[in-house]
Amino acid sequence: MKISFRRTPIQLLMTVGALFNASSYASAQSLSDVQIPPEPLVLKAQGSFYIGGERVAQTRDELGNLGPDGHITVNQMYVRYMVPQAVDEKLPVVMVHGATLTGKSWETTPDGRMGWDEYFVRNGHPVYVPDQVGRGRSGFNQAIFNNVRAGSAAPTKQPEWFRFSDEGVWPNFRFGPKPGEPFSDSQFPLAAVDELSKQAVPDMSRGLPTPTPTIKALSDLSAQLKGAVLMGHSQSGSFPLEAALIDSTVTKALVLVEPGSCPSYTDDQVKKLAAVPLLVVFGDHRDNPTGLPTYPTWQERFERCQALIARLKAIDGEAEMLDPVTRGIRGNSHMMMQDKNSLQIADLILQWLSKRTSDEGEGEQ
Amino acid sequence: MKISFRRTPIQLLMTVGALFNASSYASAQSLSDVQIPPEPLVLKAQGSFYIGGERVAQTRDELGNLGPDGHITVNQMYVRYMVPQAVDEKLPVVMVHGATLTGKSWETTPDGRMGWDEYFVRNGHPVYVPDQVGRGRSGFNQAIFNNVRAGSAAPTKQPEWFRFSDEGVWPNFRFGPKPGEPFSDSQFPLAAVDELSKQAVPDMSRGLPTPTPTIKALSDLSAQLKGAVLMGHSQSGSFPLEAALIDSTVTKALVLVEPGSCPSYTDDQVKKLAAVPLLVVFGDHRDNPTGLPTYPTWQERFERCQALIARLKAIDGEAEMLDPVTRGIRGNSHMMMQDKNSLQIADLILQWLSKRTSDEGEGEQ
Repeated sequence: MKISFRRTPIQLLMTVGALFNASSYASAQSLSDVQIPPEPLVLKAQGSFYIGGERVAQTRDELGNLGPDGHITVNQMYVRYMVPQAVDEKLPVVMVHGATLTGKSWETTPDGRMGWDEYFVRNGHPVYVPDQVGRGRSGFNQAIFNNVRAGSAAPTKQPEWFRFSDEGVWPNFRFGPKPGEPFSDSQFPLAAVDELSKQAVPDMSRGLPTPTPTIKALSDLSAQLKGAVLMGHSQSGSFPLEAALIDSTVTKALVLVEPGSCPSYTDDQVKKLAAVPLLVVFGDHRDNPTGLPTYPTWQERFERCQALIARLKAIDGEAEMLDPVTRGIRGNSHMMMQDKNSLQIADLILQWLSKRTSDEGEGEQ
Repeated sequence: MKISFRRTPIQLLMTVGALFNASSYASAQSLSDVQIPPEPLVLKAQGSFYIGGERVAQTRDELGNLGPDGHITVNQMYVRYMVPQAVDEKLPVVMVHGATLTGKSWETTPDGRMGWDEYFVRNGHPVYVPDQVGRGRSGFNQAIFNNVRAGSAAPTKQPEWFRFSDEGVWPNFRFGPKPGEPFSDSQFPLAAVDELSKQAVPDMSRGLPTPTPTIKALSDLSAQLKGAVLMGHSQSGSFPLEAALIDSTVTKALVLVEPGSCPSYTDDQVKKLAAVPLLVVFGDHRDNPTGLPTYPTWQERFERCQALIARLKAIDGEAEMLDPVTRGIRGNSHMMMQDKNSLQIADLILQWLSKRTSDEGEGEQ
């Protein structure tokens, strides 16, 4: 695949508000702060569709007593896509979000800058952004909740929904050692931290089938795309690895952004994974306590991923750790796709992708 | 506002699958059926943001025991937008979805054709697509569910989630008199009816504050846009009316697509609403029983909207019923933004919008 970056100037920005009249937006931070780039975005296609899902029978009670009993679809995965109008189209990139979040993670940043979804499109990659099964536009199976309400199931049978408190986010996402006390070099746009809080939705992944149907859906999506780069973040950080274990021929590269875990795979699994180029990316301040009792620090997770990378390299796998700190880039947070230098990090990933997928010598795209 | 339609040819279509190799997609209906238009989409801007929301304190239990207690944001509204790169930009259009659905309603149709979101953009309108508060990427307040699970609240205190069964959808959305028996003239793409099933998510709107925070968020969004067209569908069909009652100066036109209700407003309310042009659109086969016991037929809802229109016109309001049947267009369903003739219906709405907003003589856009 021939790579030629089309660099997009993003220094000159104006706000969407300015299209109408920026001065009257004083009380409307979220919209007024939304920036538009100086050059238009030209898309060959955009839209959305679903992958997977299963049809289940439910009673009238389970359906919430609005209509008759019957069948519904559950565990399907919503995917939104943008395909650039580019001459030399590059590999599709699938971006999967983390816990209590949705595909919104990759869109406009909390302070209104361009998200990685659009930036990767502007650099020639078709981009596919799912909502994990159980969240956002992918929905979930509500039957157990209605059965508990009706008294036909015990309350303990319904899964807990979890959310991070804003206070818990500060140490865990490494904005600072304590809520309201940022690291002096923090790259997160902290003036807009309340906008990040709005991106969070309740997470019922503890109530999903195991493993989450999202993993099979990602493998199926990669197959339908005839090859894709899978990018996971945090909770979904290991999903690209899991999808590659289902079918390593359709996962053309794996990018793990601040993965919550790099599992301890068997030798056979590592051998299979070695067929696919892997990049792991971690931010700064990894020794900060997460604020989540019994949870490993991000440094411990970093080290587990280092161990996986070492095993892959030992059998000639193309695996690499991208630690911006070693390049003098300090202060990146857990939400590096939203950090103030988010496009600098994106560029490093794009450069790696360009080199890895060129090395493969694939010209069919 | 000067209107000049840029008509987009959509007769010549190819599939996204064809970009890669359509022949290998036999088992992948949803993606393989996705069509791309022959002309690229040129956007001045696209992205997403949130409107509204309130910060609430929650206990560790209420947050699902992942981290410490603290504050989260609830009842915020997610909005995705596309702004066309057009010389004579038209009024922004906000498209709100119906019950058990999300903003996906307005995107790519179940059989892979262009959604109204893109079609309105290609016709010069900036388009804003929210997820109603409580659904999709807008999230909800999960505290009561976790309290029930922990035994600190009675199961009956948690709201029912509702979904329509696929069988219930057939009569209610008027695909046919019974499940699997379509009207001979049905406009819905019934070969893809399973893809519509995937668009549904559980609906907890019975558990939201009253009125739903979505209405205030729509008014705030209109104000931030310095004027917008509000389009509601089904459950949200009356939301544009309710938003106009909050501030009729920022709602430039109201479009009610198959509204679930046209409320019985007071004379004072009708007087306020008469300041804003109103279009109500209903499909065919309105006498079909809905399959929902005690629910009015769509013909009864049609007549209530006719009554509201009559009251508005009696005091010189610009209000109109668009009944495609009277124009010889038969077989439209409840999901007319997804019907096979969806762009024909969209054109009728665009023509009405063009005339109404021109009549107002507004040139500031």
